[in-house]
Amino acid sequence: MDKKSQTDTLSNNTEKKSVGRRDFFKKTAALAGTALLASNATADENSGGEGDKAILEMPEWATKWGDPLTKNLYGMPSKYEHNVTRRYTKLLASGNFRASIAVTPIQESMGIITPNGLFFSRSHGGTAHIDPNEHRLMITGLEKSLVLTMDELKRYPSVTRTHFIECPANSGQEWRGPQYNSVQFSKGFMSCAEWTGVYIKDILKGLGYNKDNIGKLWMLAEGGDSSKMGRTIPMEKVWDDAMVVWGQNGEALRPEQGYPIRLLVPGWEGNLCVKWLRRLDFANEPWYCKEETSKYTVLKSDGKIQQHTYANEVNSTVTSPSPEIDWSNLKEGDVVEIEGLAWSGMGTITKVDLSFDGGKNYVEAQLKGLVLPKCWTRWSYIFTIPKNFQNPDGSQLLLTSRAMDDAGYIQPTVDQELTKVGVEAVYHRNAVETWRVEKDGKVNHVQVRSDLTRDADGNVIIKKGDA
Amino acid sequence: MDKKSQTDTLSNNTEKKSVGRRDFFKKTAALAGTALLASNATADENSGGEGDKAILEMPEWATKWGDPLTKNLYGMPSKYEHNVTRRYTKLLASGNFRASIAVTPIQESMGIITPNGLFFSRSHGGTAHIDPNEHRLMITGLEKSLVLTMDELKRYPSVTRTHFIECPANSGQEWRGPQYNSVQFSKGFMSCAEWTGVYIKDILKGLGYNKDNIGKLWMLAEGGDSSKMGRTIPMEKVWDDAMVVWGQNGEALRPEQGYPIRLLVPGWEGNLCVKWLRRLDFANEPWYCKEETSKYTVLKSDGKIQQHTYANEVNSTVTSPSPEIDWSNLKEGDVVEIEGLAWSGMGTITKVDLSFDGGKNYVEAQLKGLVLPKCWTRWSYIFTIPKNFQNPDGSQLLLTSRAMDDAGYIQPTVDQELTKVGVEAVYHRNAVETWRVEKDGKVNHVQVRSDLTRDADGNVIIKKGDA
Repeated sequence: MDKKSQTDTLSNNTEKKSVGRRDFFKKTAALAGTALLASNATADENSGGEGDKAILEMPEWATKWGDPLTKNLYGMPSKYEHNVTRRYTKLLASGNFRASIAVTPIQESMGIITPNGLFFSRSHGGTAHIDPNEHRLMITGLEKSLVLTMDELKRYPSVTRTHFIECPANSGQEWRGPQYNSVQFSKGFMSCAEWTGVYIKDILKGLGYNKDNIGKLWMLAEGGDSSKMGRTIPMEKVWDDAMVVWGQNGEALRPEQGYPIRLLVPGWEGNLCVKWLRRLDFANEPWYCKEETSKYTVLKSDGKIQQHTYANEVNSTVTSPSPEIDWSNLKEGDVVEIEGLAWSGMGTITKVDLSFDGGKNYVEAQLKGLVLPKCWTRWSYIFTIPKNFQNPDGSQLLLTSRAMDDAGYIQPTVDQELTKVGVEAVYHRNAVETWRVEKDGKVNHVQVRSDLTRDADGNVIIKKGDA
Repeated sequence: MDKKSQTDTLSNNTEKKSVGRRDFFKKTAALAGTALLASNATADENSGGEGDKAILEMPEWATKWGDPLTKNLYGMPSKYEHNVTRRYTKLLASGNFRASIAVTPIQESMGIITPNGLFFSRSHGGTAHIDPNEHRLMITGLEKSLVLTMDELKRYPSVTRTHFIECPANSGQEWRGPQYNSVQFSKGFMSCAEWTGVYIKDILKGLGYNKDNIGKLWMLAEGGDSSKMGRTIPMEKVWDDAMVVWGQNGEALRPEQGYPIRLLVPGWEGNLCVKWLRRLDFANEPWYCKEETSKYTVLKSDGKIQQHTYANEVNSTVTSPSPEIDWSNLKEGDVVEIEGLAWSGMGTITKVDLSFDGGKNYVEAQLKGLVLPKCWTRWSYIFTIPKNFQNPDGSQLLLTSRAMDDAGYIQPTVDQELTKVGVEAVYHRNAVETWRVEKDGKVNHVQVRSDLTRDADGNVIIKKGDA
């Protein structure tokens, strides 16, 4: 049993660390007078005189019946939120619009739950629509094997955990510098949900196996869709927390998330979380499948390729402001909450720092709400808008966040990552991101780094001894 | 900052309290042999011979492209889940199909999040579709007033909390005995979500007020839809945790939940959580609105009506098995996880007990996953199916759960509640519920109580001295 209180983290704010709540309210109170006067006519439709006019001016929704309940037995978002969707670009496709990725509007995210309609979606063969009555999960490669119907699978003791899933290619287009002036496209290859399913270790224990007697070093997860995604997972992770899940945020997985079942490998590459899962196979050698050899490997600066890179490293980003949600409607002295996300596939976020000068100096941000392992962690910082969105030295604000986790990791600078890894890795990029706030409050995606030597194609030339 | 680990609560199970994991697995392992043999043809489509046959038999989703991502930029559940929806019955309507309630399929719930498409919905004038650009939140009745656009409102420091909302009429049809042979209709007037918004105390502090200087005892919340729902809330609750919320499970409120904003009064009557919120007014007397006088009051057995009953009392139910999800496919010796929900508007669930004989004897169930205040808490119990679904004494299983909270409350028996309250209260029913498992594994909703004296209409006649 896990017990905790939902403390008001804002009340824990130490005012010396960030602009205090008092200043925020000073600003808000200033709104009060004139606005009320202007809207007075709608304040009470029953007051007669002015009120009569107000009745005439009342919006349709205040005077007419709304939709019957029968119209919304499942329900969708308001038509006014039509712009809040996953997004897709041909640039992100693997040569086919069915084998592509639709990314999450994390700039609009709240809390740590991504609704199922907005959960990022990656597929290699399009979205399969599987009949759960026809579908089976096979356990093969062991002396004792198993074929489970979905009903049988769901009879195992279930567990519910909140975890993010992140594509290891999140911001992988940006090794050479900002590619998208967008937080959705540069950091939205991830989402976070409450998952329900069964630990694979519990299925294996049900067959009589434990860590000592199973005698296998690797597990293959294989998809039942047309792409037949296959990925190999070391048994240590299987015995730790890998799950077969059928529930997402309190309902069945959506088809684009692998309905009826997918693998969940908490904190590790999203690609390992095989969707439309049909088989778990066990052996003593990795399978070296297509998507763990030709892709999802890391090309290092010395020309060697690194395989078996699994956990998504500690990471963070500012979500508001961002290129999508800028400060062009704010002015000097306004108080605003800077918000962002932090996450680590290796454990729990312990601290998030925020810089206004692109990473030279940092202050500590506040972690908000629930802070869970291998889960999105929301953070914020209350800030007063300075003149022209500039630092005291006249430079434009450069917002950079930097997260730390309880495995002891901290996000690297761009310099550190480029020097260590190069620019060809595609996957596992977790250097800090920077937004520059322009004089008009618009926000642009930039990259802060020292002048590394670059070749004619713009590639960083790694100095000897650094690689 | 709240920090916690997502412990595997099952590993904390003490085997003496419930049927152990080992027995569960013994049963599961027995499935292994024959099932694999029967499905062997589909096990490997590349194995030649048998494999060729397998290719011919492969389902369409394994051999053809799935849908392109562009088709699902928002997304809906699988067509095979079409039966998992909110449900509606004319019996629950307040005389009009627009002023009614659609209840949540809690028998299908997982974890503690209800997806927005399944969140229970009650309205008194239908679902309004409000343009957020036209909508304002007014703060009136104080010396300093305020009119906020939605953009201005969202600039306050936000908070995210996970809470249930429950209609106080949940199971209110059942004072005289079971009305619905359904857990959805008898207990589904509630759901649970992650809410994002602003504490009302923070808006008031922004105007320069605090508990001591505001000088008002009551707050009115008024809706902007055609029903103009009005409810009065004591200031103590306002200063505690009442919120104006715009976010639900990481996206904007759905129209049927009050888009763009609603009140959230954690743990208290759902009816207080005014949707399509347009005004917060302050005064020293309650408003005695229609929906807090003609309705949402409690008629006691002495003929007096109780007003100002706010918090939803500690409660629980078994969700699986239930009339909707029965045990007719299980047989003696099968091991199954009995699951349910517990909740209290007064605090945090501390313990859930489960009875197999309708409340004579109880064993302790396990709380699962996150246990948060004023929030659904999931619990379970691993159980071995007995012969004919009978207790050792030959009686049919009578499954009854009983929850306790950290405010010190425990669910009453039916006898206790009927004796104390009578049968006319409509609201705030929280006596224990019972499911009877029949010999064929079907599950029926029953009520276990002593033979109270009843009049010709079936009303309980309360003995003198008990009322």
